[in-house]
Amino acid sequence: MGVINAEKSEFNEDQAACCQISVRRREPGLEEDEEWLILCSTQFLTGYYWALFDGHGGPEAAIIASNYLHYCIKQKLEEVVGAVTEASPPMHLSGRCVCDSDPQFVEEKHIRAEDLVVGALENAFQECDEVIGQEMEATNQTGGCTALAALYFQGKLYVANAGDSRAILVLKDSVVPMSCEFTPETERQRIQHLAFLFPSLLDGEFTRFEFPRRLKGDDVGQKVLYRDYFMEGWGYKTVEKADLKYPLVHGHGKQARLLGTLAVSRGLGDHQLKVIDTNIEVKPFLSCIPKVNVFDFTLHDIKEDDVLIMATDGLWDVLCNKEVAHMVRSFLAENRTDPHRFSELAKCLVCRARGKKRDHQWMLDDGHEASYDDISVFVIPLHNRGED
Amino acid sequence: MGVINAEKSEFNEDQAACCQISVRRREPGLEEDEEWLILCSTQFLTGYYWALFDGHGGPEAAIIASNYLHYCIKQKLEEVVGAVTEASPPMHLSGRCVCDSDPQFVEEKHIRAEDLVVGALENAFQECDEVIGQEMEATNQTGGCTALAALYFQGKLYVANAGDSRAILVLKDSVVPMSCEFTPETERQRIQHLAFLFPSLLDGEFTRFEFPRRLKGDDVGQKVLYRDYFMEGWGYKTVEKADLKYPLVHGHGKQARLLGTLAVSRGLGDHQLKVIDTNIEVKPFLSCIPKVNVFDFTLHDIKEDDVLIMATDGLWDVLCNKEVAHMVRSFLAENRTDPHRFSELAKCLVCRARGKKRDHQWMLDDGHEASYDDISVFVIPLHNRGED
Repeated sequence: MGVINAEKSEFNEDQAACCQISVRRREPGLEEDEEWLILCSTQFLTGYYWALFDGHGGPEAAIIASNYLHYCIKQKLEEVVGAVTEASPPMHLSGRCVCDSDPQFVEEKHIRAEDLVVGALENAFQECDEVIGQEMEATNQTGGCTALAALYFQGKLYVANAGDSRAILVLKDSVVPMSCEFTPETERQRIQHLAFLFPSLLDGEFTRFEFPRRLKGDDVGQKVLYRDYFMEGWGYKTVEKADLKYPLVHGHGKQARLLGTLAVSRGLGDHQLKVIDTNIEVKPFLSCIPKVNVFDFTLHDIKEDDVLIMATDGLWDVLCNKEVAHMVRSFLAENRTDPHRFSELAKCLVCRARGKKRDHQWMLDDGHEASYDDISVFVIPLHNRGED
Repeated sequence: MGVINAEKSEFNEDQAACCQISVRRREPGLEEDEEWLILCSTQFLTGYYWALFDGHGGPEAAIIASNYLHYCIKQKLEEVVGAVTEASPPMHLSGRCVCDSDPQFVEEKHIRAEDLVVGALENAFQECDEVIGQEMEATNQTGGCTALAALYFQGKLYVANAGDSRAILVLKDSVVPMSCEFTPETERQRIQHLAFLFPSLLDGEFTRFEFPRRLKGDDVGQKVLYRDYFMEGWGYKTVEKADLKYPLVHGHGKQARLLGTLAVSRGLGDHQLKVIDTNIEVKPFLSCIPKVNVFDFTLHDIKEDDVLIMATDGLWDVLCNKEVAHMVRSFLAENRTDPHRFSELAKCLVCRARGKKRDHQWMLDDGHEASYDDISVFVIPLHNRGED
């Protein structure tokens, strides 16, 4: 893998992190079976890690996450490293079958080495969320952050996402989305279902039903469009007084909010977050678990200008995948020899999304309003010039 | 639409239903505004309905479902019919805006008429489940069933599925899956999550963790492969005594079971079902909500031999989509003039999956074991020969 570049605008709740992750691995068997401790050879499996954290309610959670998540990942990978180089991981980590049918069951379940890396990432996010909870409590700080982490390990790229940042692969002939966004809108059914199971979480202040707009007194007794937790479609319900409460998930697009408070439904931190002027906790509705997508480099012929783009929502609010891919390809084609071209491309993407100040407004080149949010971008070249 | 054909083998917990569903519709406004009741014209919107129900623990739930589900759908469609012919359904069913911004919010949320039909189907399944619960309790009967329902309404095909039956469209140049299966394996995370939230549902008899095989005393203290509710990947956990309990979701493929009891995770009925020799109820882990897929006929040029195939798992256990599509196309090409060719094709598909008796075994033509389960198949021609 190659150069790493991050650029951000002057507004500041975003944090970036990148590093090498080396996982210690002992040659199995030697140590115990032969008691020749001196012969026990130590090897390292080395991976590469990049991550973006978009903070809210202050930058603290994002800072802690940028300092700890890679360590949690390293730790969780170390717990499974004895099995991660096998085509089929063994039922027992020691590699010794207790039962003759073990390999058969592992094969039946299609468990592969990459599933251990996915599991390690899922567990690492959960661990990191606990660390943030402790650190914030100890220092009496509040806030949370989204987390988007990429790990290149054993020939595969793993992208783990909890929040509304996004990663895409821009390849010569295609664009491959490597993440999806988790917002109150995309996770409406999960959130409403939790409120259905535990109504006390809403403390009588919110309604779990979704309506196209906030209801008013005039609507009582009328039949209006609504959705409950089990519905992908819409129905009509006769409005009761209780339906006039503020909706659990409300608003559309960038305006959508969970409990009127948060614009994301997954991320790290927010352990102390309450809905303003109430005792209602937001954390039970949040998830710190990432969705992990895997891209196998050994199955693809990676070209020199192929890159992974990771960016916070500040970029994607104003530029779509297609626009970003177009900018990436034309910039790299026009700047073949610049040794800093990947850094320059990251800067260029940030500048495009930030726009230019005209009168008192920031505007894009095409006349649309520019992004007012924090903007962070990684441009990660994928082509391997003989290095590992 | 056209002919309907169902065929089943001699084993018998499957039920089929099909009928026309006409929804009464009044011309809006006239009745109330002008009080000329005599001028109020009644129109009907007519749809067509087919459904398959695969019973377990006896055929009773499947029989009730086949008698009631179409009625529940008719009722739920009638509740929204005033809005279902509009391109954007109105915020208020009466069509009168309480608030100027109503149409804007409906448009922002992308609410379309088809979302009302999807919502009606979701609500109808839930209603039908309640009816089955009452009927079974009243007559002291037990059991449940899967439900796969297709509705052709206003130029679109809606397929609602709760269980492990399947529907596919076999078109001239493509095969379009119209449903996905809900089994303890495909819904593992939802089921494990519920057990995490409400551990008492397992009454200390089951473990919510998934392992590649049932653990034994020898495994205690060792690190074995496992998954929890938040994991798509796998990890290793040190086995404790509690992990030796029977797993909440156990087995693979057709052997997968929920609470050691059920092979499906969605369906109707089973209100009284308990795990054998315990007080543990299965119903809390089941969902009666269907996933609805929509196919818009107005966007496709439907050919004469294009059909919808609906079948219970007895067919799909031994034949894949591709094999079924191949049989459909070659059978219809070879039988152009037979007026009963769609019925004959349904019979042919059932016979192929049932196989032939050789010695004491039922075998497929290709030497594999045939289906021992009930087999029901609908072949529904889609081509409109000038009829509506």
